[in-house]
Amino acid sequence: MTVYADNAATTQMSQTALDTIIPLLRETYGNASSIHSTGQEALKILDTARSKVAAALNAEPREIYFTSGGTESDNWAINSAAELGAKQGKKHLISSAIEHHAVLHTLNKLKKNGFEVTLLPVTNEGFVTPESLKAAIRDDTALVTIMQANNEVGTIQPIKELAAIAHERKVPFHTDAVQAVAHIPVDVKALDVDMLSLSGHKFHGPKGVGALYVRKSQKLTPFMEGGAQERSRRAGTENVPGIASMAAALEHSVNNLDANIKAVSALRDKLIAGLPGKLPKVILNGAKDGNLRLPGNVNVCFEGIEGESLLLLLDMAGIRGSSGSACTSGSLDPSHVLLALGLPHGTAHGSLRLSLGEFNTDAEIDYILEQVPPIVERLRAMSPIWEKISKS
Amino acid sequence: MTVYADNAATTQMSQTALDTIIPLLRETYGNASSIHSTGQEALKILDTARSKVAAALNAEPREIYFTSGGTESDNWAINSAAELGAKQGKKHLISSAIEHHAVLHTLNKLKKNGFEVTLLPVTNEGFVTPESLKAAIRDDTALVTIMQANNEVGTIQPIKELAAIAHERKVPFHTDAVQAVAHIPVDVKALDVDMLSLSGHKFHGPKGVGALYVRKSQKLTPFMEGGAQERSRRAGTENVPGIASMAAALEHSVNNLDANIKAVSALRDKLIAGLPGKLPKVILNGAKDGNLRLPGNVNVCFEGIEGESLLLLLDMAGIRGSSGSACTSGSLDPSHVLLALGLPHGTAHGSLRLSLGEFNTDAEIDYILEQVPPIVERLRAMSPIWEKISKS
Repeated sequence: MTVYADNAATTQMSQTALDTIIPLLRETYGNASSIHSTGQEALKILDTARSKVAAALNAEPREIYFTSGGTESDNWAINSAAELGAKQGKKHLISSAIEHHAVLHTLNKLKKNGFEVTLLPVTNEGFVTPESLKAAIRDDTALVTIMQANNEVGTIQPIKELAAIAHERKVPFHTDAVQAVAHIPVDVKALDVDMLSLSGHKFHGPKGVGALYVRKSQKLTPFMEGGAQERSRRAGTENVPGIASMAAALEHSVNNLDANIKAVSALRDKLIAGLPGKLPKVILNGAKDGNLRLPGNVNVCFEGIEGESLLLLLDMAGIRGSSGSACTSGSLDPSHVLLALGLPHGTAHGSLRLSLGEFNTDAEIDYILEQVPPIVERLRAMSPIWEKISKS
Repeated sequence: MTVYADNAATTQMSQTALDTIIPLLRETYGNASSIHSTGQEALKILDTARSKVAAALNAEPREIYFTSGGTESDNWAINSAAELGAKQGKKHLISSAIEHHAVLHTLNKLKKNGFEVTLLPVTNEGFVTPESLKAAIRDDTALVTIMQANNEVGTIQPIKELAAIAHERKVPFHTDAVQAVAHIPVDVKALDVDMLSLSGHKFHGPKGVGALYVRKSQKLTPFMEGGAQERSRRAGTENVPGIASMAAALEHSVNNLDANIKAVSALRDKLIAGLPGKLPKVILNGAKDGNLRLPGNVNVCFEGIEGESLLLLLDMAGIRGSSGSACTSGSLDPSHVLLALGLPHGTAHGSLRLSLGEFNTDAEIDYILEQVPPIVERLRAMSPIWEKISKS
C-alpha cells in the first residue's frame, strides 16, 4: 500500500483543478494583456478566477493579487510593509518564532538592512499569546505578521485577537495562511487582517501559483517591476491556466469545507489516538484541542530515534511522511518550530509529521498504525541512547 | 480564418510541452524537497529539466535557476547586480532605451534608491552601438544589461561585442533573452554573458515559468527568501510540471532551430515584402537585414492611423496582432521603442506588430496580406490627418 501523508508539503491535484487547467493549457493561450479576442478570452478567465478567490476569502476581487506561490506572497507582504513603514520612520517588525522560513528569512534580510525584529515566543502547544503581542508592539512597529496555522505542528493562532491588538496601535497585520486556506474557515473580514498569503498547491491546485490578499485600504508597493499587470503591482504575464486551476481548487474545497474538516479530523484523531500503540515515550506536538489544530496535522516525537531514519523506513513501507517542513529537508538542524515549543534537541530530532487530506482513507490510517510501531521499535533497538531514555 | 500573429506576446503550447506537463500534473505531485520517494521522483524530473535547459544554452546545470518567468528573471539579475555593486561603492547601471519594462522599471526603482542609470540610445534600426557603451562605461558601473533581441521591432543586438566591452572593464553583463531563446541561436559561452533571462511561454512552453542563467563565477543574491530551493537562491516549492514542460519545449525548439528559423523567416519576409501592397506611407520598423532581425518579427507603421483601431478591425477579421508589447496595452503613450528609433509620435501611434512562429502557415500570410490593406485604407479614409500626410 502507498499512503501519501505529506499534504502539508504539497498535495495531489484534484480532479476539478485538473479539469480546469488541461483545456486551458491546450486552448486558451492568449496573453491576458493583449487587446485582441485571444487575449480578452484569457482576461475573462483571469477575472473569473479572481472573483472566485475573492469570494472564497470573503474579499473583493480587486483585493486579490496573483503571485507565483506562498513564498512570493510572504516576501511581498513583508517587504511592502517594511518599505512603507521605513518611510514613516517605523523600522520594527513583529512575528513569531514558529513562522515558515519564507517569513523568518525575509525578516532576517530586513534585519541586515537596519530593521529591528521581535519574534514572539509560543506556548508549549505552539500558541502566540495576545499578551506577548501587546507587550512587544511599539510606536515604530511597521508590521505584525503571524501565521494562521503552523505547517509543522498544526497549531491555529488566535488571529482575530492578534490583529485587533495590532489595529489598536494602527499597525498593519499580515498572516501567512498557506496552511489554513481551504483547510479551515478563512474569512478576511472576520479575521480583520490587512494582508493574507495563500498557495495553490497546498489545496490540490497546481504548483507555481499563489495569491496575496491586500485589503483595499492597505498600501502596497510592487514586488516585481515591469508590465502593468495586477493593477501595476505585480508585473509579468499572468499564468492564466494555473490561476484558474487554483481558483477552481479553492472554490471546490471551500464548498466542501465542513464535510472535509469533519472527515479529515476524524482520520487525524484516529491516528493521534492510535499512534503510540504500545510504544512508550511518544509525545504529541502542537495543540491538544482538535479545534485549534489543523484537521490534517499529526506531529509526534518518538524519543530515542532519528526522524530521518524513520522517514526512510516508512518510505520503504510505502508511507510518505515528513520530519518537519519540506523546505528544511537536507538540514541537520532540528526543527526551529519544535525547539520553540520547548522540546529538547534530542527529542525534536525524532519527530514525524503525517499530514492528511481529503484523499486519505480510513484503510490508510489502519495501515500507518500497523506499520509505524514495529519500525520505531526496530530503530529504538539500534539506538545508542534509547536504553537510557526508556528508563528515565 | 483565424490567424494568431502575436507570438511575441505569448505562444500556444506545443504538443511536446503539453505531453510533458499533463501527466506530471496528474501524477507527479511530489514536493521536490521532500526526502521520500514521491518527492525524489519530482526531484529527478527537476534535475533532468535543469540539464535540458542548461544544454540548450550551452551552460552547466548548476548555472540554471528556475523562476516564475522573464519578469522575475530580469528583476532578479538586475537587483542582484545592483546590491553586489553597491557593496563595492558601484552605483551606476547601463542599459538601453529600448529594453522591456521589466528592465526599465526595475532600473527606475533603483534610480529612486540612489543608483545612476545610463540608457544607451539606439540607431534608427534599433541597434545599440559598441561605441556608445564604451563611452558610457565607468569605474563605478555595476552592471550592463542589454536585451538580446527587441520584443517590438525584433532587432538583434551585437551581444558578444557589448559583453566584451563590459568585461574589459570587469563589469558583469546581463541580457534579457526572453525574445531570443528558442528563436535564434543562444549560446551563453559564445555570447560570453554573465546572466541571461528566459521565459517559457515565449517558446510554446507554459506560462508562469522562466529561468535565469547565472555564470558559476558570478555572485548572486537571493530574490525571494525562504526554503533552500535553487541552491538557496530562490525559495518556494518548485513548479516541477511547469519547469519540465518548459524544458521540453526548449529542447524541442532548439533541436529544430535551423529549420524553424528558415521557415519562419520566409513567412516574415513574404509578409514584409507584401504588406505595403499598393499602400503608400508604410514604414518597416527595426532592422532591415533579416539576419539581424528576429525570424518572426514584422513591425510596420501605417502613417495617418491609430494602431488600436487597426488592431480591433484586424481582430474582427480574425487576425490577432499587437501595436507594441502586450505589457503596455491600455497605455495611451506611443511605444518607447519606436520613439527611441526616432519615429515621431504620430507615426509611432500607427504601428502594427505581427509576430510569427512555427505554427503559422503560408496561407495565413496570404490571408493577412489580403485583409490588411483594405482595413488600412478604410481607417485612412476616416482619418482627419491622412489627407495632409498623404500629400507630404
